[in-house]
Amino acid sequence: MKNRRKLKKIDLQKFVSKTAMGGSIPGTVEYIGQPRDENIRIDVLEYDESSIINKSVVSFAKELEAYIEHPGIKWIQITGVHNPEILNEIGKIFKIIPLDLEDIANTTQRPRIEERDKYIFMVFKVLQLDQVNREVNIEQVSLILGSDYVISFHETTPKVFEILQNRILTGMGRVRKMKSDYLVFAITDIIIDQYFTLIEDIGETIEATEEELIASPGQSSQEAIYKLKRRLGYVKKSIWPAREVLNQLQHSDHELIHEETKMYFRNIYDHTIQIIETLESLRDLTSGMMDLYLSAVSLRMNEIMKVLTIFSAIFIPLTFFAGVYGMNFKKLPELEWEYGYYYFWGVMIIITLFMFAFFRRKKWL
Amino acid sequence: MKNRRKLKKIDLQKFVSKTAMGGSIPGTVEYIGQPRDENIRIDVLEYDESSIINKSVVSFAKELEAYIEHPGIKWIQITGVHNPEILNEIGKIFKIIPLDLEDIANTTQRPRIEERDKYIFMVFKVLQLDQVNREVNIEQVSLILGSDYVISFHETTPKVFEILQNRILTGMGRVRKMKSDYLVFAITDIIIDQYFTLIEDIGETIEATEEELIASPGQSSQEAIYKLKRRLGYVKKSIWPAREVLNQLQHSDHELIHEETKMYFRNIYDHTIQIIETLESLRDLTSGMMDLYLSAVSLRMNEIMKVLTIFSAIFIPLTFFAGVYGMNFKKLPELEWEYGYYYFWGVMIIITLFMFAFFRRKKWL
Amino acid sequence: MKNRRKLKKIDLQKFVSKTAMGGSIPGTVEYIGQPRDENIRIDVLEYDESSIINKSVVSFAKELEAYIEHPGIKWIQITGVHNPEILNEIGKIFKIIPLDLEDIANTTQRPRIEERDKYIFMVFKVLQLDQVNREVNIEQVSLILGSDYVISFHETTPKVFEILQNRILTGMGRVRKMKSDYLVFAITDIIIDQYFTLIEDIGETIEATEEELIASPGQSSQEAIYKLKRRLGYVKKSIWPAREVLNQLQHSDHELIHEETKMYFRNIYDHTIQIIETLESLRDLTSGMMDLYLSAVSLRMNEIMKVLTIFSAIFIPLTFFAGVYGMNFKKLPELEWEYGYYYFWGVMIIITLFMFAFFRRKKWL
Amino acid sequence: MKNRRKLKKIDLQKFVSKTAMGGSIPGTVEYIGQPRDENIRIDVLEYDESSIINKSVVSFAKELEAYIEHPGIKWIQITGVHNPEILNEIGKIFKIIPLDLEDIANTTQRPRIEERDKYIFMVFKVLQLDQVNREVNIEQVSLILGSDYVISFHETTPKVFEILQNRILTGMGRVRKMKSDYLVFAITDIIIDQYFTLIEDIGETIEATEEELIASPGQSSQEAIYKLKRRLGYVKKSIWPAREVLNQLQHSDHELIHEETKMYFRNIYDHTIQIIETLESLRDLTSGMMDLYLSAVSLRMNEIMKVLTIFSAIFIPLTFFAGVYGMNFKKLPELEWEYGYYYFWGVMIIITLFMFAFFRRKKWL
Amino acid sequence: MKNRRKLKKIDLQKFVSKTAMGGSIPGTVEYIGQPRDENIRIDVLEYDESSIINKSVVSFAKELEAYIEHPGIKWIQITGVHNPEILNEIGKIFKIIPLDLEDIANTTQRPRIEERDKYIFMVFKVLQLDQVNREVNIEQVSLILGSDYVISFHETTPKVFEILQNRILTGMGRVRKMKSDYLVFAITDIIIDQYFTLIEDIGETIEATEEELIASPGQSSQEAIYKLKRRLGYVKKSIWPAREVLNQLQHSDHELIHEETKMYFRNIYDHTIQIIETLESLRDLTSGMMDLYLSAVSLRMNEIMKVLTIFSAIFIPLTFFAGVYGMNFKKLPELEWEYGYYYFWGVMIIITLFMFAFFRRKKWL
Repeated sequence: MKNRRKLKKIDLQKFVSKTAMGGSIPGTVEYIGQPRDENIRIDVLEYDESSIINKSVVSFAKELEAYIEHPGIKWIQITGVHNPEILNEIGKIFKIIPLDLEDIANTTQRPRIEERDKYIFMVFKVLQLDQVNREVNIEQVSLILGSDYVISFHETTPKVFEILQNRILTGMGRVRKMKSDYLVFAITDIIIDQYFTLIEDIGETIEATEEELIASPGQSSQEAIYKLKRRLGYVKKSIWPAREVLNQLQHSDHELIHEETKMYFRNIYDHTIQIIETLESLRDLTSGMMDLYLSAVSLRMNEIMKVLTIFSAIFIPLTFFAGVYGMNFKKLPELEWEYGYYYFWGVMIIITLFMFAFFRRKKWL
Repeated sequence: MKNRRKLKKIDLQKFVSKTAMGGSIPGTVEYIGQPRDENIRIDVLEYDESSIINKSVVSFAKELEAYIEHPGIKWIQITGVHNPEILNEIGKIFKIIPLDLEDIANTTQRPRIEERDKYIFMVFKVLQLDQVNREVNIEQVSLILGSDYVISFHETTPKVFEILQNRILTGMGRVRKMKSDYLVFAITDIIIDQYFTLIEDIGETIEATEEELIASPGQSSQEAIYKLKRRLGYVKKSIWPAREVLNQLQHSDHELIHEETKMYFRNIYDHTIQIIETLESLRDLTSGMMDLYLSAVSLRMNEIMKVLTIFSAIFIPLTFFAGVYGMNFKKLPELEWEYGYYYFWGVMIIITLFMFAFFRRKKWL
Repeated sequence: MKNRRKLKKIDLQKFVSKTAMGGSIPGTVEYIGQPRDENIRIDVLEYDESSIINKSVVSFAKELEAYIEHPGIKWIQITGVHNPEILNEIGKIFKIIPLDLEDIANTTQRPRIEERDKYIFMVFKVLQLDQVNREVNIEQVSLILGSDYVISFHETTPKVFEILQNRILTGMGRVRKMKSDYLVFAITDIIIDQYFTLIEDIGETIEATEEELIASPGQSSQEAIYKLKRRLGYVKKSIWPAREVLNQLQHSDHELIHEETKMYFRNIYDHTIQIIETLESLRDLTSGMMDLYLSAVSLRMNEIMKVLTIFSAIFIPLTFFAGVYGMNFKKLPELEWEYGYYYFWGVMIIITLFMFAFFRRKKWL
Repeated sequence: MKNRRKLKKIDLQKFVSKTAMGGSIPGTVEYIGQPRDENIRIDVLEYDESSIINKSVVSFAKELEAYIEHPGIKWIQITGVHNPEILNEIGKIFKIIPLDLEDIANTTQRPRIEERDKYIFMVFKVLQLDQVNREVNIEQVSLILGSDYVISFHETTPKVFEILQNRILTGMGRVRKMKSDYLVFAITDIIIDQYFTLIEDIGETIEATEEELIASPGQSSQEAIYKLKRRLGYVKKSIWPAREVLNQLQHSDHELIHEETKMYFRNIYDHTIQIIETLESLRDLTSGMMDLYLSAVSLRMNEIMKVLTIFSAIFIPLTFFAGVYGMNFKKLPELEWEYGYYYFWGVMIIITLFMFAFFRRKKWL
Repeated sequence: MKNRRKLKKIDLQKFVSKTAMGGSIPGTVEYIGQPRDENIRIDVLEYDESSIINKSVVSFAKELEAYIEHPGIKWIQITGVHNPEILNEIGKIFKIIPLDLEDIANTTQRPRIEERDKYIFMVFKVLQLDQVNREVNIEQVSLILGSDYVISFHETTPKVFEILQNRILTGMGRVRKMKSDYLVFAITDIIIDQYFTLIEDIGETIEATEEELIASPGQSSQEAIYKLKRRLGYVKKSIWPAREVLNQLQHSDHELIHEETKMYFRNIYDHTIQIIETLESLRDLTSGMMDLYLSAVSLRMNEIMKVLTIFSAIFIPLTFFAGVYGMNFKKLPELEWEYGYYYFWGVMIIITLFMFAFFRRKKWL
């Protein structure tokens, strides 16, 4: 029971956005999210077309200052946003305005985009299905796109990021030939691809629930549908605003978004539309299942009532007649008849057959 | 049972879009769709107004290179998109960008349009009703409209395409007198016409279900409605985005779309609107049927309960009175009466008549 | 039963748009609609302000060619669109493009407008209530507005058209003083006025159904509501797109629409808005009635169950006690009591009164 | 019963717009509304800033001609629109076009605005709660705003107009200092203020119904909710389009609307938005009440069934056992036992207690 | 009971907007809201970057005139709007137009913004959760943004305002360095932050209700859901229009809104969007809970009916057989059998087992 509660709590956090308590000063960097105490980890990946690749781990945020001068594109991954000081330091180095730092530290933000003078700030949600407890983990990824660097902030390192790293290291794809905005595309592309996996999994759950529903509708199918609806709810909430972000990216006039990259953003924008439409369809499917379920419950009720009615309607009259001949009237002629008892059974059988015919005509049997 | 499951699985695939697994590199051509192993077939149809017509089957994609120089309009049909190498080869010859090739190979795309510098890329869905198992087959048709050629990619050859081929071969219609964009019109026109057939079939199914529903509402009508709703769901999902594609075509400024063809695109755009409105109406009809069904189930329940109540309310009191005169009290005056038994029946009949009157006044009989 | 089916079929045709079978060539004139074999009838009404009025019936479409040269406004009524040859001939004379002829012959079109170089093509729906079988007949009226003529195509002659003819013949209204676009206004005005009549009739049906519903809710009320909903569905489907047509007319820049006529089109545009809003209200009303009905069914169920429960709860215990004193135990003291039987009745009456009090406290009685 | 029908009829008239019968000629002034035979009354109120105030009753419409020359603002109130001749006469004097006169005479119009060359024509609805029969009276007020006059047409004189008159007569407010458009503002302001009163009354009815619903849900609560929904329906239908009218007024470029008055129109536009939002909220509240009601009915059913089940489940087995010892088998050992009867009661009590425990564990008791 | 009513009344006031009674003259300042009789309190907070801070309480509104000349930014807090004279006086000093004064005094306004020549007028709602009776208190805050002052009107002092005051006094945040528009930002920011707290509380209530619902669905869960829906209703009604206000602020061209402040308004605009989306999600959750509840009620009904049916179906036939052998026929052979009674029990047990098997096959046991 306790475990259940805990799961629910986490569930609700997927819906409810939060802000710093007690009306703190705007621009104050304050971590809002699940409690964490790991150390914050900073990885830098430097690359350019001519194959100079450099991967390094930075111990202090201040060291990042040195990288600014480096040639080539730099992907700086910050794993962990629960340390305001480090965020403030990074903010100072890369001239990130406090309002954006505040949003990076608040992991309950909705996906959005802000075009600043020198950089573009984006927030996305990474949805990963936990294979063990079948729950969806929602994590926030904030991106800062600068002239020759991309900074990604995340609570933990999304698994898919490692794939992207390896691709850059092995020189696969066009990412090495392009500017920093293509790296942002590569990151968002891999985030959005995750959504497809999630949606397929939801689709399979719907299939399984549907089968159970048709086989034996009960409390558990109802709860499965309810859970599905909730899941669709918060998944949609995480994905829907990403559409606007990508739309703005593909039409942006910001100098950091190059004309040749927009085609790619348009491509993932289309994917997002596809995912949203699929979500709508799945929502319709679950609603349909709910109807199916309710109607199954009604039909089952009818079934139960029919059994009750048939039994009652046949035996209650018979019992009355048995009662009649159990009466002790001084003069009760039928009791004296030679074959009275047999006549009784005959009449009883006739009544029963008549009732059967009656119910058959009503199509209850 | 097994067969049912399989059908369902296919059903869900009509809803859920997919992407390449494991976050593959953007622009990677990877087949996504139902498993196939037939050879890919390439047909070329060359024609111009002055009746030079040429139909040929190409064995290797490379051979297509030669056709580019040919005068006249070329319709290149690629049947089968499950071979990435062939797609890549074609892509190289006609300078199709990798993102589009990726989408051609992914048969779970939604209808869309991309205007590129040298060509226009379109995706449509062909909906064909399988007359045997009464299922709707959804196949994807991708079109590349070039200056003097149209390439159509499809998993199998849609039946309707043969009609169009024959029309071109026999010189019927204006297609031979017009540019390549009219060929695209002719293809989309024939695809959209298919939708009308499908919708008529759904309409007939609704009619049949409705009749069954009024005659005897039961589990099967409920499942029929549920199936109808699902079908309407994925049909809408396939048709709805085609509207946007056709809208963009009729207003496009791309040099490949000539002013005189836009009128035709506007015409099929109107047809699509009509189909979508009809789908909405059919959706309303199925919702109405669902209400009818639920209310029929409720009424039937009332009916069952009335029978039970009438039987119980009449016979339970009678049984009590029979029980009373079956008691063995030493002194029970009525038992001693000369006509006690007859009086008993008299009273029973009066009670019964009274109950009948009561139920008739309540309009239950 | 057969009759019913036929009615339904016709009903569904009001929803489902169709297209020519087998993917015929675009621009092919093919009749789609209810089978008809009457001869096609052509009436010409010529008029101008200085009272020269001429009404003539034309036997062959070719004769129309002569009328083009006539001065004055010409209203050419074509009754029957099931003869492609005649339509093609008319099309040739008035230079109507094939796509429009195709749409004239297809009576399942939705209301629309096409502005061509030399004429404006419009499609409307005439809704007439058949007073005998209380069904709504939907017929299509296509209009071609030319420089000094209006051609109206219809399956049968709408009754209201005769009123308009007479008005022109007797010189009533301003129609004789105005250009051909005013004639189009006069025709659409009279078509839209019909809708008000229809809506009033639906309103009255709603009233009648509501009264029946409150008096005795049953299967028939449910079916009446269902039928109402369907009717509202297809009426809306016929009227809704007319709004767009009239909106385009009142804002059109086409040289055939004169500034002074736009005010009139705006007027009937407003009427259409009014009709659509009323339809929405009526839809809400029927939904409300459905709720009322379902709740009445539930309440009735409660009523039935109460009767059953009261009877059972009173008599089942009594019967048990009667059974107890019908037992044949050797030693059963109460049976030996002098007034045992009377005590028995006393206790029974007390139990009954107690039960009554119990049910009264529960407000069931 | 008859009274009820009549009330309903009036109710429906609030929803259904009408037009002149038999497709009369556009621009024909024909009264449509509730039958009336009072005389039409014409009041003129003349005023300007320098306190020259004149209130006079006009016997013949023709006399109005004289007033045109008068200096100052003139408010001409026409009470009664059921006399086409008078309307036509007024129309001639003030150059009102026939289409507008037609709409003035049709009291089932929706609120709208028409900007003509020389005047602005507006239609509003006055909603007044009849304190006696608790019905909402809907009356139409048409306004003609001219250069230095306002003509208001109404079926009866709205009570609130008297307040406005007195205010002008006593020189309160700014109306005396402003142009004729401010008078239109003053009139609409007082009309919209009425809506607040109505909405408050509906709110109170909702409160009362809710209380009744929680105390004892029954047929009457259901009908109260139904009635509320209907009322909200036609109130919304009357108010909603007024929003558009006021929006057009506040943005109008017509020379009769002065820049300084627009601020006032914007103010009542905001009020209308507020009223519409409140209506939406009230609609949600009634829907919520409907859910509450349906669930109360279901719960009550559960309650009833529990009582039935408990009584049956306890006494039916007991009755069986009583029946067993009422059997006349020659050899039935228990009957011979010394304390058989007492054992019997003992077992019965144990069974009963067991059943009680069973039902308590199920939380039914 | 009385207490309940009172609570409801307050509840409804959160939905229903009001206006001055009896159609008072537009621009008349009249207090509309909960009756209050405290004295109105006026606080002035003066500040500028160079730390000159001055906090003073003003006894008479007239004294405010002196402050206009003071350098620095002035925040004038008016606590209490129920005294029209004071409002009028303030209005005269700061040249607030009467329409705005009227809206300040009417605490049932919806959030809105008016850009006037010399100032911007805004209305917001402060939502505070009363920790004692768990009710939401809605209060109106009107803001006047002038060149170097901000006037805030409120019924009571919102708690959060004190936080803001202290922040200014201690020189925290950037408010001291910015213009008066930043003060407006700071105020709205702190108001919007309150909404997050409220939403979190609603989220927790949903969680608690859900748990109760799953444990034992009953009347109380239903009422809790109903109350939740209402609360979501009026919270949304208070927050939704704030979105438009903030949108206008971030895009305003008014000279009082400086370019550098717009970024901040955009930030809280985003927060508002987030809150609104969360409200939508919570609404979906409560709807889902309602479905869960209704289905739980249905399932429970099924459960009850099953118990009834099983008991009846088993014991009613048995009782009939017991009745048979209680009959007094002269000749009833089974009664004479040596082991008749035992045979009877044997048959009864067989019947019972058979019934059990029957119900088990139906999966009722």
